[in-house]
Amino acid sequence: MEKLSGHITIAAVGKLKSLQYRFIQDDFLKRLGRYTDVQLVEVKDVVGKGLPDEVAMQKEGQALLKATESASRRIALTSTGRMLDSPELAEFVRNQIGVYGRIAFLIGGPVGLSVEVRQNCQEALSLSRLTFPHEIARLLLLEQLYRAGTIIAGESYHK
Amino acid sequence: MEKLSGHITIAAVGKLKSLQYRFIQDDFLKRLGRYTDVQLVEVKDVVGKGLPDEVAMQKEGQALLKATESASRRIALTSTGRMLDSPELAEFVRNQIGVYGRIAFLIGGPVGLSVEVRQNCQEALSLSRLTFPHEIARLLLLEQLYRAGTIIAGESYHK
Repeated sequence: MEKLSGHITIAAVGKLKSLQYRFIQDDFLKRLGRYTDVQLVEVKDVVGKGLPDEVAMQKEGQALLKATESASRRIALTSTGRMLDSPELAEFVRNQIGVYGRIAFLIGGPVGLSVEVRQNCQEALSLSRLTFPHEIARLLLLEQLYRAGTIIAGESYHK
Repeated sequence: MEKLSGHITIAAVGKLKSLQYRFIQDDFLKRLGRYTDVQLVEVKDVVGKGLPDEVAMQKEGQALLKATESASRRIALTSTGRMLDSPELAEFVRNQIGVYGRIAFLIGGPVGLSVEVRQNCQEALSLSRLTFPHEIARLLLLEQLYRAGTIIAGESYHK
C-alpha cells in the first residue's frame, strides 16, 4: 500500500460533544492514518460564550491559523469553495501533498471561518451546496480524505 | 410550530450496522417527526450475498418501490440528481408535500439505484458531487430534511 509521504493537519473548532460523532470521527482518523500522517487539532470554541459572534469567530480563526502554522498549504472548507467529486478530491490531495508536503484543512465552527482565515488559505473547497452542521462537515471531510487515500492507493471502497 | 400536513417515507437499503450511525439516524428521525409525519423503511439488502450485483440491485429496487407504493411522489437520491442548497431543499419539500401529500425519498445501497427505480421516481436529487457511503448519505438526507423542517417553521438551527 502506498503511504503518502506528507502530513495532513485537520484544524477544527471545538470537541465533538456527541459520543457517536466522536466514535465515527476517531474511526475515520485511524483509517486515514494508514494512508498518510494525519493530526486533528481541535481549537477552543468560543462562539456562544459571551463574546459577540464576530469577535468569537476571529478568536477561533486565529487559533485555527496558529494550529496550522507548520503547514505549507492551507485549505479552507467553505460554502463558496470549489466543489470536487471524490476522484478529483483524491487527485487534489495527492497533488497538494506532493507539492507542499505538509497541508492543512481548516473547518470553521457554527459561525464559519473569519475573513482572516480565508485570506490565509490558498485553496477553498466546498463539500456540498447544502449546509451541514459543522460536526457533520467534519465527518464528511474525514470520510472523503480516507476515501481519497483508498483511491490513491488503488483500493476498492464501498459506495 | 407549523407541522406539515403530509407524510414522508424514507426508503433505504439495509439496517445501519454501526450503533453510532443508528443512534444519529434515530435522533434525526425523532427530531424530523416534530415537523412532519415520517417513516423510515429499511428494505432487505441483498447485494454481496451470492447474487450478481445487477440482479441484487434490481431486487433491492423492487423492494424500495414496493415500500413507497403509498407515496404520490417518489424522489430518488442519485449522484446525477439536482443539487439544491438547504433553503431550496426546504422549499422543494414544502412544495412536494403541499402538492402531493405523501412523498418518498429513495436511497440505494452500496451499488446504487436500479434503472427501474429511477424510471419510477419523478424527481432526482443529489446531496453532493462527492460520493459518500450509503450510510452517510442516509444521515445527510435525514439531517437535511430535519433542517428543512426548521427552515419551513422559521426556526433557527445551528450551522
